[in-house]
Amino acid sequence: MLFQVEMTVRLPVDMDPAKATQLKQTEKEMAQRLQHEGIWRHLWRMAGHYANVSIFDVRDNAQLHDILSQLPLFPYMQIEVTALCRHPSSIHEDDR
Amino acid sequence: MLFQVEMTVRLPVDMDPAKATQLKQTEKEMAQRLQHEGIWRHLWRMAGHYANVSIFDVRDNAQLHDILSQLPLFPYMQIEVTALCRHPSSIHEDDR
Amino acid sequence: MLFQVEMTVRLPVDMDPAKATQLKQTEKEMAQRLQHEGIWRHLWRMAGHYANVSIFDVRDNAQLHDILSQLPLFPYMQIEVTALCRHPSSIHEDDR
Amino acid sequence: MLFQVEMTVRLPVDMDPAKATQLKQTEKEMAQRLQHEGIWRHLWRMAGHYANVSIFDVRDNAQLHDILSQLPLFPYMQIEVTALCRHPSSIHEDDR
Amino acid sequence: MLFQVEMTVRLPVDMDPAKATQLKQTEKEMAQRLQHEGIWRHLWRMAGHYANVSIFDVRDNAQLHDILSQLPLFPYMQIEVTALCRHPSSIHEDDR
Amino acid sequence: MLFQVEMTVRLPVDMDPAKATQLKQTEKEMAQRLQHEGIWRHLWRMAGHYANVSIFDVRDNAQLHDILSQLPLFPYMQIEVTALCRHPSSIHEDDR
Amino acid sequence: MLFQVEMTVRLPVDMDPAKATQLKQTEKEMAQRLQHEGIWRHLWRMAGHYANVSIFDVRDNAQLHDILSQLPLFPYMQIEVTALCRHPSSIHEDDR
Amino acid sequence: MLFQVEMTVRLPVDMDPAKATQLKQTEKEMAQRLQHEGIWRHLWRMAGHYANVSIFDVRDNAQLHDILSQLPLFPYMQIEVTALCRHPSSIHEDDR
Amino acid sequence: MLFQVEMTVRLPVDMDPAKATQLKQTEKEMAQRLQHEGIWRHLWRMAGHYANVSIFDVRDNAQLHDILSQLPLFPYMQIEVTALCRHPSSIHEDDR
Amino acid sequence: MLFQVEMTVRLPVDMDPAKATQLKQTEKEMAQRLQHEGIWRHLWRMAGHYANVSIFDVRDNAQLHDILSQLPLFPYMQIEVTALCRHPSSIHEDDR
Repeated sequence: MLFQVEMTVRLPVDMDPAKATQLKQTEKEMAQRLQHEGIWRHLWRMAGHYANVSIFDVRDNAQLHDILSQLPLFPYMQIEVTALCRHPSSIHEDDR
Repeated sequence: MLFQVEMTVRLPVDMDPAKATQLKQTEKEMAQRLQHEGIWRHLWRMAGHYANVSIFDVRDNAQLHDILSQLPLFPYMQIEVTALCRHPSSIHEDDR
Repeated sequence: MLFQVEMTVRLPVDMDPAKATQLKQTEKEMAQRLQHEGIWRHLWRMAGHYANVSIFDVRDNAQLHDILSQLPLFPYMQIEVTALCRHPSSIHEDDR
Repeated sequence: MLFQVEMTVRLPVDMDPAKATQLKQTEKEMAQRLQHEGIWRHLWRMAGHYANVSIFDVRDNAQLHDILSQLPLFPYMQIEVTALCRHPSSIHEDDR
Repeated sequence: MLFQVEMTVRLPVDMDPAKATQLKQTEKEMAQRLQHEGIWRHLWRMAGHYANVSIFDVRDNAQLHDILSQLPLFPYMQIEVTALCRHPSSIHEDDR
Repeated sequence: MLFQVEMTVRLPVDMDPAKATQLKQTEKEMAQRLQHEGIWRHLWRMAGHYANVSIFDVRDNAQLHDILSQLPLFPYMQIEVTALCRHPSSIHEDDR
Repeated sequence: MLFQVEMTVRLPVDMDPAKATQLKQTEKEMAQRLQHEGIWRHLWRMAGHYANVSIFDVRDNAQLHDILSQLPLFPYMQIEVTALCRHPSSIHEDDR
Repeated sequence: MLFQVEMTVRLPVDMDPAKATQLKQTEKEMAQRLQHEGIWRHLWRMAGHYANVSIFDVRDNAQLHDILSQLPLFPYMQIEVTALCRHPSSIHEDDR
Repeated sequence: MLFQVEMTVRLPVDMDPAKATQLKQTEKEMAQRLQHEGIWRHLWRMAGHYANVSIFDVRDNAQLHDILSQLPLFPYMQIEVTALCRHPSSIHEDDR
Repeated sequence: MLFQVEMTVRLPVDMDPAKATQLKQTEKEMAQRLQHEGIWRHLWRMAGHYANVSIFDVRDNAQLHDILSQLPLFPYMQIEVTALCRHPSSIHEDDR
């Protein structure tokens, strides 16, 4: 089941750089692991913003929440969630 | 070059049903042709809305505009355009 | 899987009263059938508004979209969809 | 008398973790006690957000305010209140 | 139980003047009857707007909805409802 | 001359409790004195919010500003001011 | 007593031109009469908009409402009202 | 050339009072000097707000920017700028 | 003196096509004449929108208003005006 | 390929002045270098704001993101990006 998720990151401007670096590194590892597992299907940068557009393929709403709320940057993110489904004009049964 | 495009359709409630049907049919054909050409990469329905989330892969801004403005439903759409690029945490060189 | 759906109805002020009455009657029958089936779990009126707050229990996003888009008043509604899941402080395994 | 309450929690990112843990624990105990008493009828997590959708069944506006303003996380919450009543299409006399 | 209700009226600019006059006359009679009954406690005009600020004293949310939705101008109104209660700094037990 | 004033208080979450207590106490005394003088006609709590709806009866705009800007909590408030006047459907010459 | 009033005019695009001309002519005459009387102190066009910024000097809120609601273009206007008073840094006792 | 400028001041609640007093004093002197020079034509307080509505008469956009950006409170202000011109219904050639 | 102007065109969906064509043709001629005169310095299409971003070089606010309000599509446009001036980091004395 | 970029800078009011000066100096050098390279085509100050309107001419979305995200003031900016293309009424093949 697909969801579009838009995440905007707002790190405090006075955050300890070492802490920021570590948070981003852990975030990246988790993002890549979830991509390899096929859960985080797409991940794009919004040009000009510290933000991304993502497509998640999850079992249900609960799994989506578990994943997002465990991201290391979750406390610093503004998140928008949109439930998606197949579009009748799509040429793909399962649009990947 | 990728763009996220969100289209919300607002047909007049008193539109002639035959005209609406034809507009939608032509829209669908054009959407499917552009998908086959690899330009309209993804097309998802937003659950509960007469709206879609789409990913376009175009040569430049001009091609994006030409395509969107020639859609039969363009005069009835509210459109939001977001320029995308590769995310440093993406595992794909070219996220399709 | 649960979704909160807020629907605000905006009928044209010059709609034929007979048509309005019939739309509302069909809408009511469909709403009651879906409640009996356990899909439309809750349905409340927002005081002072021609609007409702509803909780749907559906299989997935696609089923939610199919149900909402087939409501007779769908073309006249502004709809907001929020994906819900179990709250860790809830005393219910499945909050009905 | 029913109210829909949407609560979004914004803890300061530099809050002392021990204090945060204790606030959340006290909040949880209070939420569960109010659920057992039938006052906090429903409590759902919004997927992807540190936020909940709740339904309260209270005697009057004053009781609603007393409960919400005594929640330990109240100073950190953004709250929206919507007065609800029976919907004419509901199949329940008292929609629980 | 008190509610603040803000009503903004938007009559179609091409409404038949006779119909508009009658709607307003019926609205006025209903508003005055409800004031005499002590339900519509206060009614003020917002300066410069075809709008009012009102205070209602009702039994519960349902009564508030019944009253508002039966106003002749209800289909032409944008309405905002705010649940009120006693303020701890008020010098009145029951602020009328 | 009447004004509706909506005040939302946002105290810093780390404010010294003794200072907060004293500010609120002075605010309360001033609010009660102005009520006794007939200037602060009505004062209601918005249920679920650290906010109030008030009706002021002042000589002119200048007096309204002097009163509001001298409230101890003024620096912590977001304020909205709406000029009111007699409503033609009111049954009161001077709606108190 | 001074008020800043911003008026934005939205005439229906299909309004009968003769009616529009007459409305504007009557509006102009009323605006000029009120300026000569010293009530409509200032009247400026917002560059690029069918809108104005005005300063009114009225006895009270009621007079402001009477004047605005009797303007011929009132039914076609979106209006914002802001109560003004003397600024402590102004060099004028009565800023005209 | 006239501009309407709306300035809202947001001083940090923990600003050193001596610094605040000095900033406001310097701001006041600059505001009064500009009024005497005929550049800051009007200056009104918005009732209930730490904000003003001002009319500036400047040579061009650049002069407007130079003046505003040199105000001592500029770093603490939210500013809105509206370009004004003569209104065809104004009775003044140069509305002062 | 430079202004950024953003124009969004909203033609009624049922406008007579011949009228629309003529309006657009006259609009184009006027836009091109003003470009040749150096007044309408830049004119870009916003990709995906029936809208443009423009830079005008005018004598004063009045000339800007005269030009914009005489555009054939003015009654169908939503317009935003931003006063511009030289940026201290610009390498151009007069950024064309 | 052209983009309109609006940048609003919000430096913390308590930022170390030496750090602020250095950030702005580096920002200026980078902005001027990019202007000389023809990438940052236009750069204007918004009158009355610590903000600019810019036109970028870049190879693609990725280059735009790389440039913006490497600006020294990027962490302190709110940015809006709009994709531009040639306007059919422009008299320039490549509007510079």
